[in-house]
Amino acid sequence: MATAGKVIKCKAAVAWEPNKPLVMEEIEVAPPQKNEIRIKVIATGVCHSDLYHLFEGKHKEGFPAVLGHEGAGVVESVGPGVTEFKPGDKVIPLFVSQCKECRFCKSPKTNLCEQSWSSDRYAQMSDTDTRFSCRGQPILQFMGTSTFSEYTVMNQIAVAKIHNDARLDRVCLLGCGISTGYGAAINTAKVEPGSVCAVFGMGAVGLAGVMGCKRAGASRIIAVDINEEKFEKAKIFGATDFVNPKAHQKPISEVLIEMTNGGVDYSLECVGNVAVMRSALESCVKGWGVSVLVGWTHLHDFSAKPIQLIAGKTWKGSLFGGFKGKDSVPDLVLDYMAGRIKLDEFVTHTMNLEKINDAIELMKNGGCIRTIINVSK
Amino acid sequence: MATAGKVIKCKAAVAWEPNKPLVMEEIEVAPPQKNEIRIKVIATGVCHSDLYHLFEGKHKEGFPAVLGHEGAGVVESVGPGVTEFKPGDKVIPLFVSQCKECRFCKSPKTNLCEQSWSSDRYAQMSDTDTRFSCRGQPILQFMGTSTFSEYTVMNQIAVAKIHNDARLDRVCLLGCGISTGYGAAINTAKVEPGSVCAVFGMGAVGLAGVMGCKRAGASRIIAVDINEEKFEKAKIFGATDFVNPKAHQKPISEVLIEMTNGGVDYSLECVGNVAVMRSALESCVKGWGVSVLVGWTHLHDFSAKPIQLIAGKTWKGSLFGGFKGKDSVPDLVLDYMAGRIKLDEFVTHTMNLEKINDAIELMKNGGCIRTIINVSK
Repeated sequence: MATAGKVIKCKAAVAWEPNKPLVMEEIEVAPPQKNEIRIKVIATGVCHSDLYHLFEGKHKEGFPAVLGHEGAGVVESVGPGVTEFKPGDKVIPLFVSQCKECRFCKSPKTNLCEQSWSSDRYAQMSDTDTRFSCRGQPILQFMGTSTFSEYTVMNQIAVAKIHNDARLDRVCLLGCGISTGYGAAINTAKVEPGSVCAVFGMGAVGLAGVMGCKRAGASRIIAVDINEEKFEKAKIFGATDFVNPKAHQKPISEVLIEMTNGGVDYSLECVGNVAVMRSALESCVKGWGVSVLVGWTHLHDFSAKPIQLIAGKTWKGSLFGGFKGKDSVPDLVLDYMAGRIKLDEFVTHTMNLEKINDAIELMKNGGCIRTIINVSK
Repeated sequence: MATAGKVIKCKAAVAWEPNKPLVMEEIEVAPPQKNEIRIKVIATGVCHSDLYHLFEGKHKEGFPAVLGHEGAGVVESVGPGVTEFKPGDKVIPLFVSQCKECRFCKSPKTNLCEQSWSSDRYAQMSDTDTRFSCRGQPILQFMGTSTFSEYTVMNQIAVAKIHNDARLDRVCLLGCGISTGYGAAINTAKVEPGSVCAVFGMGAVGLAGVMGCKRAGASRIIAVDINEEKFEKAKIFGATDFVNPKAHQKPISEVLIEMTNGGVDYSLECVGNVAVMRSALESCVKGWGVSVLVGWTHLHDFSAKPIQLIAGKTWKGSLFGGFKGKDSVPDLVLDYMAGRIKLDEFVTHTMNLEKINDAIELMKNGGCIRTIINVSK
């Protein structure tokens, strides 16, 4: 393309400081260096992890930064050493890379990667840790992705090439939330056919968890949320029962234990609240119940009585649903295109990048499942 | 035998009330009723769970009671409906029964049993819940076993028949502590060949955990204890490294992570202390580390940061090492007789039942690994 090798000036929503609205700016995006790819971002979702960074500032990069990590786009140009991608390829940026060389990538037990953003930010970039600047000031990349920009630069180990007919304003959701919940059921809990499941929290991740339980053949999927309006949505993804903890005097774990003759086989916590994490474990059946932390918080410890585990329950968790991104995301895209997984049903709002602060407010207030941001034309 | 069908008067150590020494008494042991077996107890170990009951009184039976649950003996007589056992058979009482009919017994995933002492005490006995009395007062059975008595009565679902050449003053240890630690490594953690393990606490259960890791083919087994005198013993069972947390400034988890390039593959907590449980989890490698609660406490919650599980670690626990008792204990006895597992090396003291309070003091003060009590001749 005509822009290859040159600095690109484009629009981005910049988080200059914590707890302030994002600001639309013209930023400069440097060309990709060795092993890097410059991507024109077409669409992105907004995820709670973006909010965490913005409102609690606990991620490692700090500010100013370009947030966004649930995107899809088209390769604009590639740096030296890149052979897997060419301009025009459709891609999904991965916040968990897959270098295929480290001991984690070589293990079938995990999707972590030692070169990942969360392990070693600098392994992804050749020299400095960002290709963004605004009026001469470096702007940091968030989770290695930064999809709230018309262009971003990624290390090739953190990019998945997807089918060229994929609808980017849908499959972008596979970049985080949907893969996370779906994979937590399939890969982490390893839900078995005929089993009884409970999913706590009917946001996008929880709904995707329900979809994963359904795909794995669960016979009963209990959706748990304090907002009963979510039940209709949960039904679409496969929930068979709905429980509102606020509608019961007794603890939700006791309610579920009574409903299921001793507890559920699998539970997924998709809220990020340590009290809910405890309830999710306590709701599991003795002997073989598995509870998975999908929601995340760094604010508090999770806890339980030792007898919960001594009685044979297992407490697990996963990042990005346990999917190795380069291997799995292209297949998830095909699953969507073939109708094997749903994505359209998660989308409740669509906006342009200029409206990003509205999308953030919607998410903060629980007013959406997922908002799709159209970033570039 | 001449005693069949009659009340037997015999010696037993009775716990009349919490926090008091046991009292040697002559008690009356009623004949076995339907599905029950009366056992002459030959030998028993003393386990921390006995102390829990005595000093904290938290088990469900209360007082007065006959403690002891790590015993071996000989069938004296059987009640109606018992066909699997006959007088003279050598047996090990099981505090986790195996009815072979409930959904837990039918699942390969667990060794729990719905008829068990801990689930439903009364399923084990035909009418009243004890066959013991002393001067007309009923004396309760502890954990369904009560091996601190020359005779006890068990439901047949909670008795394992073992090889008739087995040395009862050794294989009694398979009734609790040794099976618990050994099985936690083999069955619960499912330690893999070549893996790196850490075992916290070098009491009998922890040493058995080391033995289990070794049997499973671990390449490195790190014994963790604040008492360095335990190291020589740990070596006998297969430990390759020893770490005393008190000898380090930094947290033990950091020490282990440094020693093992990122953390151990498996850790076993064999202390029953929630701070140690946390350390054991934190010592595991990201991606696939598995930590198992083997020690138990009801006093506090265990806790950790959610990221510990989100990063791919698994927290588990098990009771009686995950062994289904009737199926597995006879094989463990054969393993001992064939030299595949060690038992002699756990025995540091031997006493007669009259000295039971000395044995309890020794255990309280950490002065023994296991004391064998010779109960009957």
